[in-house]
Amino acid sequence: MSKALTVSMIVIGDEILNGRTTDLNGSWLSKFLFKKGLEFKSLRFIRDNAEEMTAALNASFFDSDIVITSGGIGPTLDDKTKNTLADFFKKPVVERNDVAELVAENYIRFGRSWTPETNHYHFFPQDFIAINNPRGLAPGLAFFTADKKLVMAAPGVPREFTAMVEEEFYPLIKKEFADRLKENHQCVIRTQGVPEEKIFFELCPTLWQDLEAFGKVSSLPHTIGIDIVIGFTGSQKEFEEKSQKIKELIMKTPLAPHVWQWGNRAIHDMVLEKALEKKCTFAFAESCTGGLTSSKITDLSGSSAVFYGGIISYDNSIKENVLGVQKETLEKFGAVSVECAIEMARGVRELLKTDYAVSITGIAGPSGGSKEKPVGTVAIGIASKEKNTAVLYQFPGDRVKLKDRFSDKALLTLLELME
Amino acid sequence: MSKALTVSMIVIGDEILNGRTTDLNGSWLSKFLFKKGLEFKSLRFIRDNAEEMTAALNASFFDSDIVITSGGIGPTLDDKTKNTLADFFKKPVVERNDVAELVAENYIRFGRSWTPETNHYHFFPQDFIAINNPRGLAPGLAFFTADKKLVMAAPGVPREFTAMVEEEFYPLIKKEFADRLKENHQCVIRTQGVPEEKIFFELCPTLWQDLEAFGKVSSLPHTIGIDIVIGFTGSQKEFEEKSQKIKELIMKTPLAPHVWQWGNRAIHDMVLEKALEKKCTFAFAESCTGGLTSSKITDLSGSSAVFYGGIISYDNSIKENVLGVQKETLEKFGAVSVECAIEMARGVRELLKTDYAVSITGIAGPSGGSKEKPVGTVAIGIASKEKNTAVLYQFPGDRVKLKDRFSDKALLTLLELME
Repeated sequence: MSKALTVSMIVIGDEILNGRTTDLNGSWLSKFLFKKGLEFKSLRFIRDNAEEMTAALNASFFDSDIVITSGGIGPTLDDKTKNTLADFFKKPVVERNDVAELVAENYIRFGRSWTPETNHYHFFPQDFIAINNPRGLAPGLAFFTADKKLVMAAPGVPREFTAMVEEEFYPLIKKEFADRLKENHQCVIRTQGVPEEKIFFELCPTLWQDLEAFGKVSSLPHTIGIDIVIGFTGSQKEFEEKSQKIKELIMKTPLAPHVWQWGNRAIHDMVLEKALEKKCTFAFAESCTGGLTSSKITDLSGSSAVFYGGIISYDNSIKENVLGVQKETLEKFGAVSVECAIEMARGVRELLKTDYAVSITGIAGPSGGSKEKPVGTVAIGIASKEKNTAVLYQFPGDRVKLKDRFSDKALLTLLELME
Repeated sequence: MSKALTVSMIVIGDEILNGRTTDLNGSWLSKFLFKKGLEFKSLRFIRDNAEEMTAALNASFFDSDIVITSGGIGPTLDDKTKNTLADFFKKPVVERNDVAELVAENYIRFGRSWTPETNHYHFFPQDFIAINNPRGLAPGLAFFTADKKLVMAAPGVPREFTAMVEEEFYPLIKKEFADRLKENHQCVIRTQGVPEEKIFFELCPTLWQDLEAFGKVSSLPHTIGIDIVIGFTGSQKEFEEKSQKIKELIMKTPLAPHVWQWGNRAIHDMVLEKALEKKCTFAFAESCTGGLTSSKITDLSGSSAVFYGGIISYDNSIKENVLGVQKETLEKFGAVSVECAIEMARGVRELLKTDYAVSITGIAGPSGGSKEKPVGTVAIGIASKEKNTAVLYQFPGDRVKLKDRFSDKALLTLLELME
């Protein structure tokens, strides 16, 4: 078997190393390449200058068959990628009619017009391939080196970067390197309610070694627990066989009751799928998570068929006046209590007229904690035709992390309820 | 003046290059270093193996005075950072009583107990400094090389990484390199409603060059517009003088009415500050943004004093039954209309009894668009004692991006309303 095709990425832009912008393209590309069976060899972040870019290109080509850059191909003076690439490969930048045509067509597609006075997009390195930008105006660049390596430059704007890689770069890679593409797989076991050390040192002291027979093992903390990942290369059939064997192995261990998913999907994704399958509607009453749970669900297209909406009862007056939580409940048990959570869930279910409802009321901190109910305490309530109930949990983390954990736990509660 | 202190970071972990986990530490560190006046030289992502780590250490020390690694210092077998660092600096890993004591104390702090059988944390490279982990169990590592460079290894979990850098690593850097720390500044001008090209090629064709007199210029798309950033090194007084001059310069250009902030703060941050200052309460009625706007506000500690809550009226039945939008309004104008937005804002304000309310109803796509109201259309409504009104806008982007843009525009609308 030929060696896996390797890719390096160079993220170009002062704004990223200065902390102004968070790069999203690197992590997107890592997922994309993995799915497509390419090996992501290295990721470098550099500033907008020719010297650093040249050093990064040299290092990347040492690592990899393909180098992808993001950023620095726009119209302004800090966009230096085009000229630096031209210099690197000793190609002059020339006025090119073919690129002018591509750019002009692109502008028309966006309902705008382009002339050579608009910008310098049509000045382009000789022998480079001009790449269509499906979601923006600046054309991308591609160039094959004498030793059949490939460099490609895309814009930094994530929506333009991802579209260009998917729709333009990847087809080019597939065409040129077809014989070297192979499949990567990952078996993922998602657990909850047991710390990493307890899994591998107490519950299942030989599990790690046992799993290594199947591939490369890693263990990763997730919002509500630990994910165990086993990665390997092979056919789809091998993947299915290994997945089955791994499942059988784990089902025999004390870890089994802690597994909530044999796969790698986001909880909100699974919630939506289950609700669509069972045709049941749901709503949330959110206090400390402040709408995050609902926002996760509405990130998914198609959610409007089953997700009716929610009440964000941040202030206790909303819990009372809108959700109908009893004043006595709040006084006697407090807002962060199973009693309050039950009334919130029942209240939102009745108000929004859904099959199911889940409520979240907790302390995300940094203030508001007490000895009995420290920061990280959350009550999650459920309401359905059959029952109204709630459970109190405790999670670690800071405010933003706790919101994320609370909402994922609420989504998992809803998933279990629908099953 | 001595040269700026340079830092490189190595992010270690298969899970990041495989797309399983998104690295948050790199972008956090870039912000932190910038604030502290250190130059972030390079960021490398590598897999959990000694060969790649050795190569990355060599390259990083070539770039930088300080190298920070994240990941791979936990208790499991894929945690290879400690041993690789020891090998790199030719130090044996030995059983160290001082480290055992540190670890044991740390476990007690977390209400757990540690003995040498628990894990191998007390096997530690000779001459390395063991670093306290303020938010976790695994100790960090630090080591000064013969030529006075510094390497530091922290855990990959963001909450542990950031606490260790802030509370342990940075004090160490400050102590050892005090004479080489200097201040970086950025003047940020945040605009809305005008595309990047129009600013620099049409409205203000000499602006870029004019601004370059003050420092390094960059131009960055943000959710609702373009940010112009001018970066330079100098004293606080110089920063204030330059900021003032830049402001005067821009106030004379046609860009002036498009500037909504002379600074670098998130909109939700400014909304909360203004509401606290003016002591006014607010609520949201969110349709397409599904709780995202409320979630942004509740990411901020202290928001409960002014943010009462919200109604997520994803389904039209909620708009009618909970918010009191007229059936006729929905039938005649549709849910995405200024008419509906006004009734939503008024409805939530009356129901939640707040000073102000903002509503958002739009089409985040990918489906649901029409010729008259394409994907990206949003109506943002406001309600106050004085007035109820709404405006229709149009934004580009995919579903998740549009949610973000719609909610930032709603927050900006609220900010303007409170002013």
